[in-house]
Amino acid sequence: MSVPGCTMVIFGGTGDLAHRKLAPAIYNLHLEGRLPSDFSLVGVGRKQKSDSQYRQELASSISKYSSSTWDEKQWQTLALKIHYHAGDMRYAENYLPFKDAVETCNIESGGNGNYLYYMALAPHLFTPIAENLKLHNMTAGESGWRRIMIEKPFGYDLSSARKLNNTLSAIIDEESIYRIDHYLGKEMLQNILVIRFANTIFEPLWNKRFIDHVQISARESDGIGDRGRYYDRVGAMRDMFQSHLLQMLALMAMEPPLKADPDTIRTEKLKLLNAVHLWPEEESKSNLIFGQYYGYMQEKDVAAYSQTETYTALKLAVNNSRWQGVPFYLQTGKKLEDKLVKIVIQFKSPPSFYFGDPLEGVYKERNDLINLLTLKVQPKEGVAFQFNVKKPAAIEEVVPAEMDFCQPCAFLINTPEAYELLLLDVMNGDQTRFSSWNEIESSWILTDSIHSQHRKSLGNFDIYEAGSLGPESAADMLIRDGRHWW
Amino acid sequence: MSVPGCTMVIFGGTGDLAHRKLAPAIYNLHLEGRLPSDFSLVGVGRKQKSDSQYRQELASSISKYSSSTWDEKQWQTLALKIHYHAGDMRYAENYLPFKDAVETCNIESGGNGNYLYYMALAPHLFTPIAENLKLHNMTAGESGWRRIMIEKPFGYDLSSARKLNNTLSAIIDEESIYRIDHYLGKEMLQNILVIRFANTIFEPLWNKRFIDHVQISARESDGIGDRGRYYDRVGAMRDMFQSHLLQMLALMAMEPPLKADPDTIRTEKLKLLNAVHLWPEEESKSNLIFGQYYGYMQEKDVAAYSQTETYTALKLAVNNSRWQGVPFYLQTGKKLEDKLVKIVIQFKSPPSFYFGDPLEGVYKERNDLINLLTLKVQPKEGVAFQFNVKKPAAIEEVVPAEMDFCQPCAFLINTPEAYELLLLDVMNGDQTRFSSWNEIESSWILTDSIHSQHRKSLGNFDIYEAGSLGPESAADMLIRDGRHWW
Repeated sequence: MSVPGCTMVIFGGTGDLAHRKLAPAIYNLHLEGRLPSDFSLVGVGRKQKSDSQYRQELASSISKYSSSTWDEKQWQTLALKIHYHAGDMRYAENYLPFKDAVETCNIESGGNGNYLYYMALAPHLFTPIAENLKLHNMTAGESGWRRIMIEKPFGYDLSSARKLNNTLSAIIDEESIYRIDHYLGKEMLQNILVIRFANTIFEPLWNKRFIDHVQISARESDGIGDRGRYYDRVGAMRDMFQSHLLQMLALMAMEPPLKADPDTIRTEKLKLLNAVHLWPEEESKSNLIFGQYYGYMQEKDVAAYSQTETYTALKLAVNNSRWQGVPFYLQTGKKLEDKLVKIVIQFKSPPSFYFGDPLEGVYKERNDLINLLTLKVQPKEGVAFQFNVKKPAAIEEVVPAEMDFCQPCAFLINTPEAYELLLLDVMNGDQTRFSSWNEIESSWILTDSIHSQHRKSLGNFDIYEAGSLGPESAADMLIRDGRHWW
Repeated sequence: MSVPGCTMVIFGGTGDLAHRKLAPAIYNLHLEGRLPSDFSLVGVGRKQKSDSQYRQELASSISKYSSSTWDEKQWQTLALKIHYHAGDMRYAENYLPFKDAVETCNIESGGNGNYLYYMALAPHLFTPIAENLKLHNMTAGESGWRRIMIEKPFGYDLSSARKLNNTLSAIIDEESIYRIDHYLGKEMLQNILVIRFANTIFEPLWNKRFIDHVQISARESDGIGDRGRYYDRVGAMRDMFQSHLLQMLALMAMEPPLKADPDTIRTEKLKLLNAVHLWPEEESKSNLIFGQYYGYMQEKDVAAYSQTETYTALKLAVNNSRWQGVPFYLQTGKKLEDKLVKIVIQFKSPPSFYFGDPLEGVYKERNDLINLLTLKVQPKEGVAFQFNVKKPAAIEEVVPAEMDFCQPCAFLINTPEAYELLLLDVMNGDQTRFSSWNEIESSWILTDSIHSQHRKSLGNFDIYEAGSLGPESAADMLIRDGRHWW
């Protein structure tokens, strides 16, 4: 695997993302020998500082946040490839020296002519920076490639996302825009397609005939920290549902792609997203829960009477022949009792013909005989399967048993950080683990429609205690259906 | 659960089975409080000995062979219910005092009028003893029940089994004859039906559409010990295949019974056994392997030029619509490298459309992408499932992963010995875990036909090294089919 190198420019090079995620990811790749030798990095920020000062700051973050141990010698080799450029990049007049610095850096590291622009800053800065790059002929060149990586959120709603996309697509072509949903870089999300299509026993069961319902949960115990200014404008639906939850749903539920090719996979995900809608309401508000944790309005930078949801739970339908009638329950929230991300597939229960009155089976299933397949995304990746066995020594009693596969335990490999994979993907020009514009658009259409449905139904909030399981209404939504959250 | 007690008469009360299996099982049941209070035991042997001498001998065996720890106080309570009667029970003249002793014992323990006759001796003694019991009106009475438990082998071939059955059925009705196949008392064998029918995900896959083939193995590392006289007359086919292997096959492959009722289940097993035959030979002798370990002829009580197989491997077909085209590979043998009993189900491989060249899938499957379900019977009961996941950190590589469920680990219960369950079953009058005459008959028809096929094909033996995997021809049989023993 020979990955082409590039000069990576981080706009927001002194920010949180650069320090906590990007620098540690680059350092890990370097340690593992996976970073191309003709790679170089230019951090961009407004403050004046020297290369060596910037390197020192990154070194201290890496030793704090990287999953690898500190190797001073390796760092010294890497540090030489790291530079800093000071300037307010909103303004066109700052681009001549900037362009010069970046090109020098590329030449020094091998002159491959490839440039990767990473937008690690507030969304309102994406457009002016992109336009300035275009203006200074930095988005195309005689040789090499130019690619842009953009952090979520890609827009705030459908109309702002469209506007951002129109701007970007006037500057650079779709295939050079890498929209990050870092969940797609997580091991278990990549594993979903392998588990589905590399195992004969799952595909035949992966449909409405055998699956009772699906649960997708992304539960956080943390609050919003000092991200109040961002979060209060966004909320759980935009922050988690529109991106991470819908991507997990798409991978779990999409039709088999004809081949493992980025376009083919993204087309199938798009088809799936287009088929998703809120489960038709039988009674008002029953299938959409918005919650806010008690004390949220007192958090730093949050509006005094904030109407932002910190929790949401929904019952969704996928309107195609594979999933007709199968509910997908999704939930995400902050300040909850636990911290986990997982997909749970509950299979239908067997008829009671064998274990009960033979006639009972005509009317009902044995609802206590559960089969669950759990895809664990966080904190520990893995797969678990709950099935039923005979209770030892008992004549007729059936009890649940669990088989567990723990991915990091089995392979004794530190699961690579999502950003390591994603950076390599961009250098390789592989869009598989990035969202296409069409997917983003489809996600926003759905998210907007849910928001407007919530507003129409008076926009109620259910307040929940910090450290609780979430609003009771979210539990009730499943209980009404004779189910419960796993 | 109130189990009716009885007076249990062990013919062969000083023998190996009584000491190693029956007495420890009764002791365990007593410890667990599962032995009815009106239970009593009469051990019968030819040597003169007192009750207290007999009790002492059993106590010493129990403390050696029971899985429970020794509890002197509990034993003292149980010992009072144990008696010994000396006599050569081939001869009618010995039955008057015997009958007297047994009846006294029953009256002393509560007088329930129930008698359980356990034939724990050489098969040629079954008939004379049964006839004498009949002659002395011990096989029926005004009150209570009379039941006979018979150890395998039930006959030596079809004709001797029929003869024995004719004798027995003239003496006592079919429903009072309990033919032991102690494998049916093993936890995992009982678990097969629960696993199949209490889990929605297995039943849809349990057929030729999804299963590539099935392997049933009962491998022993021990030799024949001092059982040469018995074993050399019998061999692996009669000792293991006709009984244990075919019962495992029947439970694994039978159609779902309409209810969990002894007759219904035994009828389904019989239907299955009737559908089994040796896989039609494409080339001579390829689907039937007879082996003998090197040195077998030098074992004690073995004929100098013995033609007895100590190993057999077969490829069987089940001629019904569920299993058409699916090979069942069975193997059993002595003096092998390992000691285990298990059923392995290999599912078909997925098409290569997703993980390889899309066109390849038209022609072939990805044979390296294996799904296995293993039902582990011995030494540790459990279920394992091998499936495929993405190799962490790798982009495209798929690797096998295993989930494991260990029954004793999960429940922290000592799995009860097969004989504990089987003795309770007989007292309860439950025939589920015993073989019906029809099943035995069907097994002998198949076993005889295989023997005759072997003779027709010159009756070759493949000699294998003690401590090896078995004859190479057994490995070749699968390799020819593009498979291998798991």
